[in-house]
Amino acid sequence: MNIKPLADRVVIKMVEAEETTKSGIILTGSAKEKPQVAEIVAVGPGGVVDGKEIKMELKVGDKVLISKYAGTEVKMDGQEYTILRQEDVLAIVE
Amino acid sequence: MNIKPLADRVVIKMVEAEETTKSGIILTGSAKEKPQVAEIVAVGPGGVVDGKEIKMELKVGDKVLISKYAGTEVKMDGQEYTILRQEDVLAIVE
Amino acid sequence: MNIKPLADRVVIKMVEAEETTKSGIILTGSAKEKPQVAEIVAVGPGGVVDGKEIKMELKVGDKVLISKYAGTEVKMDGQEYTILRQEDVLAIVE
Amino acid sequence: MNIKPLADRVVIKMVEAEETTKSGIILTGSAKEKPQVAEIVAVGPGGVVDGKEIKMELKVGDKVLISKYAGTEVKMDGQEYTILRQEDVLAIVE
Amino acid sequence: MNIKPLADRVVIKMVEAEETTKSGIILTGSAKEKPQVAEIVAVGPGGVVDGKEIKMELKVGDKVLISKYAGTEVKMDGQEYTILRQEDVLAIVE
Amino acid sequence: MNIKPLADRVVIKMVEAEETTKSGIILTGSAKEKPQVAEIVAVGPGGVVDGKEIKMELKVGDKVLISKYAGTEVKMDGQEYTILRQEDVLAIVE
Amino acid sequence: MNIKPLADRVVIKMVEAEETTKSGIILTGSAKEKPQVAEIVAVGPGGVVDGKEIKMELKVGDKVLISKYAGTEVKMDGQEYTILRQEDVLAIVE
Repeated sequence: MNIKPLADRVVIKMVEAEETTKSGIILTGSAKEKPQVAEIVAVGPGGVVDGKEIKMELKVGDKVLISKYAGTEVKMDGQEYTILRQEDVLAIVE
Repeated sequence: MNIKPLADRVVIKMVEAEETTKSGIILTGSAKEKPQVAEIVAVGPGGVVDGKEIKMELKVGDKVLISKYAGTEVKMDGQEYTILRQEDVLAIVE
Repeated sequence: MNIKPLADRVVIKMVEAEETTKSGIILTGSAKEKPQVAEIVAVGPGGVVDGKEIKMELKVGDKVLISKYAGTEVKMDGQEYTILRQEDVLAIVE
Repeated sequence: MNIKPLADRVVIKMVEAEETTKSGIILTGSAKEKPQVAEIVAVGPGGVVDGKEIKMELKVGDKVLISKYAGTEVKMDGQEYTILRQEDVLAIVE
Repeated sequence: MNIKPLADRVVIKMVEAEETTKSGIILTGSAKEKPQVAEIVAVGPGGVVDGKEIKMELKVGDKVLISKYAGTEVKMDGQEYTILRQEDVLAIVE
Repeated sequence: MNIKPLADRVVIKMVEAEETTKSGIILTGSAKEKPQVAEIVAVGPGGVVDGKEIKMELKVGDKVLISKYAGTEVKMDGQEYTILRQEDVLAIVE
Repeated sequence: MNIKPLADRVVIKMVEAEETTKSGIILTGSAKEKPQVAEIVAVGPGGVVDGKEIKMELKVGDKVLISKYAGTEVKMDGQEYTILRQEDVLAIVE
């Protein structure tokens, strides 16, 4: 089974906290908005979204930083995913 | 009797929870926004909506993920439907 | 006496609950937003509304689904009407 | 003394309740928004308003339906008027 | 000393209540928004404001109706003025 | 050390209350919004801001009226400054 | 490990308070919005963002003033960073 995001949406899988620590990234405990490290698992086609041409810059496998409250969570085959718009992805981590 | 959605709206029928489990998709219990699996049963004509040209990407029979709070519910011939805009559909599930 | 809606507005008359039941449409009791079946009794001329060209898709006699909270109610010759924008009409029921 | 509304504004005078009853129009007691019957007494020049070309469709003498909370009230020579934008006029009553 | 309003702003001086009564204009006591009679004492140059070309329609000496809550008050040489945008002026009184 | 504002921002230094009184300008005690007299000490380059071409009309040395709540305060070399957008400057005082 | 901000975002590192004092910049204690001195450590590519062409004016090494509440914090290799949009940077300090 497969999730195909629409428009300018991407599907991400959160990277485990242990993995996060290993790679040296630790998220701050700010009460307002906690960024999170995630991996892109599916990318929408882009195109005209809300009257504007959107080019998808992200690709499957990218490690990204997102805001904790961005997007909608979904669980599939026992794995949790989040579907969000490309513009809600803050940065790529390399 | 038939529902013909206007503009960029689609009509969806929620997929039963049992069927959801069978297909391996289980929705998270997030208090903020619960996505749901649904099947498209009618698609509006698209066209110019709020000054922007909207092309309908969805078709009848598509299984889709939507936010729980998107759209308006209606019951017809004993079946509940939801009418929502195409942009409120998050992803297609295959 | 006659109501001529301006711009992209339509005037609707709610279809009686009994008639609703007969036709097989029953509205859900959702606390958030209850859709309702109505009949179009007058249609505005459309044209440029808020800087965008609006073409009227609805015509007098159409049975439509609307959100309960859309529009403004008015009583005339003992009959209640609602005046709302075409974009607040969700679907046509046939 | 004379009120000349600016841009896309019109000046209206509420039609008395008695007159309203006589003509067969009775307003509903909805707590949310009560429409009201009024007569147009002055019409602005229209033109470019907020970057959009507005053509005035209303003329002095038109009987119109408006939302109770639209516009700003002003009393002049013992008569109360309301100044509101043309887009806040819902319909013409004939 | 002189106030030169920027962009599409005008500077107004409230007309005294006595003068108001003499001219036959009395403002209503609505709790929501009280319009007021004022005289234009300075007019900005207009031009492109927020990406839109604004032509100044008001001139020094015009008597105008404004909303009580529009604009910002300033006292200069013992006289109170209000600085507001031309679009917040409702009508010219002649 | 020097502050160079970005885009359509300007840096202002509040004019002391004594100086304000001497020049005959006294600010009103309105609880909603208190305008203030300030001097421009730096001007951004203007250019395309939020998709619109902004031409800077203000220059260093201008005395201006601003809203008390506009902009962000910063203290540098013992002097307080405020950084705000040109559109938040109400008028020039000469 | 490296953070590559997307679109018109930049990554900044707050300048230590001691360093701030040494350079003569002290931030005000306003309860509403505290600006902060920071150093740019990464700059996004710019391009079309929300339908508008954005040119990046900032470069790595720039000392900038930002609002305290702008952006999202992230900790990496023991150092805290903030990711924010270029338009949320108020000024460059030289």
